[in-house]
Amino acid sequence: MLISRPANVRYLAGPAAPAGSVLLLGPSGEDVLVSHPEPGRGSARAALPDDGLSWSELPAEADPAVRAASLAAEAGAEVLALEEHHLTVARHRALAGGFPRIRLSDLGCAVEEQRLVKDEEEIAALRVAAEITDRALGELLESILVGRTERHLALELERRLVDHGADGPAFPTSVGTGSNSGLAGHRPTDRRVEEGDFLSVRLGARFGGYRCQIGRTFVIGTSPADWQVELYDLVFAAQRAGREALAPGAECRAVDRAARQVLDAAGHGQALGPVTGHGVGLEIGEDPRLSPAAMGRLGACVPVTVEPGVHLPGRGGVRIDDTLVVRPMADGGPELLTITTKELLAL
Amino acid sequence: MLISRPANVRYLAGPAAPAGSVLLLGPSGEDVLVSHPEPGRGSARAALPDDGLSWSELPAEADPAVRAASLAAEAGAEVLALEEHHLTVARHRALAGGFPRIRLSDLGCAVEEQRLVKDEEEIAALRVAAEITDRALGELLESILVGRTERHLALELERRLVDHGADGPAFPTSVGTGSNSGLAGHRPTDRRVEEGDFLSVRLGARFGGYRCQIGRTFVIGTSPADWQVELYDLVFAAQRAGREALAPGAECRAVDRAARQVLDAAGHGQALGPVTGHGVGLEIGEDPRLSPAAMGRLGACVPVTVEPGVHLPGRGGVRIDDTLVVRPMADGGPELLTITTKELLAL
Repeated sequence: MLISRPANVRYLAGPAAPAGSVLLLGPSGEDVLVSHPEPGRGSARAALPDDGLSWSELPAEADPAVRAASLAAEAGAEVLALEEHHLTVARHRALAGGFPRIRLSDLGCAVEEQRLVKDEEEIAALRVAAEITDRALGELLESILVGRTERHLALELERRLVDHGADGPAFPTSVGTGSNSGLAGHRPTDRRVEEGDFLSVRLGARFGGYRCQIGRTFVIGTSPADWQVELYDLVFAAQRAGREALAPGAECRAVDRAARQVLDAAGHGQALGPVTGHGVGLEIGEDPRLSPAAMGRLGACVPVTVEPGVHLPGRGGVRIDDTLVVRPMADGGPELLTITTKELLAL
Repeated sequence: MLISRPANVRYLAGPAAPAGSVLLLGPSGEDVLVSHPEPGRGSARAALPDDGLSWSELPAEADPAVRAASLAAEAGAEVLALEEHHLTVARHRALAGGFPRIRLSDLGCAVEEQRLVKDEEEIAALRVAAEITDRALGELLESILVGRTERHLALELERRLVDHGADGPAFPTSVGTGSNSGLAGHRPTDRRVEEGDFLSVRLGARFGGYRCQIGRTFVIGTSPADWQVELYDLVFAAQRAGREALAPGAECRAVDRAARQVLDAAGHGQALGPVTGHGVGLEIGEDPRLSPAAMGRLGACVPVTVEPGVHLPGRGGVRIDDTLVVRPMADGGPELLTITTKELLAL
């Protein structure tokens, strides 16, 4: 098997695997990490887990996948399973042309499936990531916000994540104010926070490679307008319904439906994106997806986000995102990692 | 032709093209941008250049490439040229299976080749990016550095880039101090700047989609040690040799050789990475590559970096990176975009 997707290589080979590495897995554990040398990182090799993984370095312009196939050929491999959802047609052709005696097959998402359920070490990393995220957000809430731009708030949040020990942000921090609030993938602009605005933020820390996500919406000024309270309560109810539907064995689409139908019933179903949550881990958007078309059921120890939102064009909107770990009721039900309050705060 | 590589789509369809869009180019200009709807970005459609490009939106879970192929099939296309160096095997298979009457061929790097030579509008964006970068770096040099960590300095530089109008950093800012200085892809750590250290920084702004790069090395404290002066002068001489070799018609590998042989002659050739420079534009690592194996020649109006460096394990090192635009001698020779001084400053 030839593993090329970066998060999959990281998952199997550990954090010391240099960027662009591929992993060749043999039938009886004679695994090789193939990577470009990294200047000044002579110690990376030593940092690899000592579990029979060996290391093959190669010239800078060579494709690690081709080297891996060549090692497979030398070892007499007849079949090589590849990640066809990651490998480009051009790289695949180079392998097919270079090693005509090896039959290339598709490994599919076998490694992604392994990554779905997290062990306690992975969950511990996510827990730290969430703690860092909560602290960064908490500090921001204590500062003066009126007059500052979305961009500056986003940068300050990212700085605070790193201050508190994050490797970096888990994804680009989104800050939306006024009519930009509540937009799912809003990229921060030079718009300044004003009295009476909704302010929505979405951020997350990356810690030990693992990524979490939180989203919160606030009101700026003394007291929120009626429409703001109403919209907030609605999204909160939808998000709670989603959270409460999380359980081992629950259908992914049933969790989505739980959140979605609250918004649908209030006539805001269209404002909702295609997913109301997704898995998190080494990547920020992993399986499972919580969407109407999602197949499959949740398992225990699967961390997911629950993140419904409504945006009213021209007015703004609300998003509330949490990261939780699915746990059986006997263990207390879903474990909330992002514990910042979900009360509607007026800042 | 089906264009899927994001920077190529951005190049041909302009900045309004949503993430994940693909572009279908017909034989007589009936071009279609196929993208997922972006909630709250209804205006993106209107922002598209009015040059016959039409717009096809599709459901969130559908692959834009499949929709594009279906539009091509409806229009009676017999051949569809794809970017096989970008498209995955799995997506290619979906196209081949879904549209058996269309012959799929390889477009290769045709769009990347178009992107090589920049027009004056693109160079203007790069010039602004470089101005922003110089200002951010200049401000950092006026602040107290001793005792601060690499991570903090990197974040502060990125904040200043955005303060001065950048869309964001062009790539993750690298700050290395002491034994980390001079490492090409160094990721900032919690190491603090100390008296006597080399401090090397590499950063760049992204402006209007275009990315530039600067790298500088400084000495912390009163006066540099002899080995530091010697190493700095050597890298400076190599970098100057590379810059001076830039000319329309010059072989890429000759430019690389000009810089490399200065370091080789001093016995530091091994410390050098595989490239001594590369093109910049919508991506930070574009063609051409300045390396010993590079084929091809430089053209006028091609922006490139010249960035040799030497790292001595355990001691540190020096990197000096500039972004320049290749220009004929009649126009004054290479245009230096990143104008921060290359004197060895003691900070």
